[in-house]
Amino acid sequence: MKCRRCGEVAVIDLPRHNAAFCKPCFLEYFARQVQQAISKFRMFARHHRVMVAVSGGKDSLALWHWLASHGQPTVGLYIDLGIAEYSRVSRERCEAFAQRMGLQLEVVDVRQETGFSTPALAARVRRTTCSVCGLVKRYFTNRTARRLQVAAVATGHNLDDEASTLLGNVLHWQMGYLARQHPVLPAADGLVRRVKPLFTLTERETLAYCLLQGIDFLEEECPHARGATSILYKELLNRLELISPGTKHQFLLGFLRRARPSFSQAEPPPELGACRECGEPSTAEVCAYCRMLSGARRADDAFATKENKGGIT
Amino acid sequence: MKCRRCGEVAVIDLPRHNAAFCKPCFLEYFARQVQQAISKFRMFARHHRVMVAVSGGKDSLALWHWLASHGQPTVGLYIDLGIAEYSRVSRERCEAFAQRMGLQLEVVDVRQETGFSTPALAARVRRTTCSVCGLVKRYFTNRTARRLQVAAVATGHNLDDEASTLLGNVLHWQMGYLARQHPVLPAADGLVRRVKPLFTLTERETLAYCLLQGIDFLEEECPHARGATSILYKELLNRLELISPGTKHQFLLGFLRRARPSFSQAEPPPELGACRECGEPSTAEVCAYCRMLSGARRADDAFATKENKGGIT
Repeated sequence: MKCRRCGEVAVIDLPRHNAAFCKPCFLEYFARQVQQAISKFRMFARHHRVMVAVSGGKDSLALWHWLASHGQPTVGLYIDLGIAEYSRVSRERCEAFAQRMGLQLEVVDVRQETGFSTPALAARVRRTTCSVCGLVKRYFTNRTARRLQVAAVATGHNLDDEASTLLGNVLHWQMGYLARQHPVLPAADGLVRRVKPLFTLTERETLAYCLLQGIDFLEEECPHARGATSILYKELLNRLELISPGTKHQFLLGFLRRARPSFSQAEPPPELGACRECGEPSTAEVCAYCRMLSGARRADDAFATKENKGGIT
Repeated sequence: MKCRRCGEVAVIDLPRHNAAFCKPCFLEYFARQVQQAISKFRMFARHHRVMVAVSGGKDSLALWHWLASHGQPTVGLYIDLGIAEYSRVSRERCEAFAQRMGLQLEVVDVRQETGFSTPALAARVRRTTCSVCGLVKRYFTNRTARRLQVAAVATGHNLDDEASTLLGNVLHWQMGYLARQHPVLPAADGLVRRVKPLFTLTERETLAYCLLQGIDFLEEECPHARGATSILYKELLNRLELISPGTKHQFLLGFLRRARPSFSQAEPPPELGACRECGEPSTAEVCAYCRMLSGARRADDAFATKENKGGIT
């Protein structure tokens, strides 16, 4: 297998581009994809400081590595969800990466902030850990981004993530989500701008970037993600991609170009005010995070009261 | 396994309805689904004569059987595509069914009409047999329906067909098809009304109907359909259905209720005139069928001329 650009021995084949690349040419391909996404969708300017939300996995560390080594001013944000061993190891990877690269990393510890780990919060409010995790991450990401006054928050969502989210939104015709799914969510009423510079690159390509750049990322998925429908959607899309390379890209880009405008017109974005309790943006008087947290605290108090009365059965 | 309605021994389970039924209760369930589709979508009235497009397969014969045995005035239409053994056997099944039930069957023979079998037409105009077959069937169905002055053409499309078509339309964001995909296509400018009374019933349910009613249908798929993407889409949807029963139904019905209105607004239906050659409805001066047929004849003439000159290499 030879590199399509220079004829050297290739290290990766990309059927969807009918191409194979050697290491330098793959890194150039990768750079072009990221640069095009940033400039075409006007994600941020070269002098803007960007906060990169990192999990310790391949996508977010590839993104941070690429931005930092291309001169973009960045700060990392790691949210410690308190998911036992998984959080301990992923935090370690992020801290080691930041130290090796000489980059600033902010850490928010959910246990310190709320008094509970994410699974404990979920158990108290009787929701799935994944749904509480999403809420907590959105909340602390925005709050930290405002505090640090960054121009945008960048996340490592790749083409597989975006295509599988789109498939889920389409299978259930989630009209509001379809109206808003986009590589750029503009800033609005206290919400910091959010961007996804890797959205045209596949999982396999961000993995190759990490391997070629010697980035020490965490391979394990979060234990709570096992059996998630998003994983099934990715499998189904991979089967389609195998038979018809380019399917994921066409599905996502066709949506952005042709279908999304009709959805956005039909579903205007909700109006946001400031939460009465914490001041963060919210569609309700008290934001979902504050309601969830006070729910968890009430559940804990009820438990303690019952215990004091010897009433637990 | 017991029938949910009467407690007798069940013959089929329907996970998506969290139910199992004995033979009489399944037939009642089936009837309710068809009746609801017909009345809710105002497909046709009880006194209307309906043309049922039959292929000899389970879906179209189940539909014709159900309509005829519920007192609907019907006429069958079989289009003999000239696909060797497959067409011979499927025609036989339709003729035998019509005779047994004492129903009128119209037969259109593509070879008699055009001078070519469908695969021969496809080879001459360098298109796939499936695309020419679709064109030929739409053309002769409409022409025959106009000649017989029926109120509507009913086809046996089931939930699996409709959901897999929808998945294909969504994966490629075919905006025009998405705007028009519906269990009823109203009559317009020479196009006869088209309806799909089985669109809420699965393949497995129309199969059960045929088995329970002793309908002798053709089990083989058309040999040209092998490896078709529609079959892959059905497989993928079946995997989703297995994990989350009701997925196909929600996907299709959610589309009709929530998403389709936005598409229809963005994509108004094309204007139709009458074909200069044959008078059938067309968006162009000469319809796609007449253009295809004259293309096939030109290819044949060119072949004959070359042969006469001894110029074939």
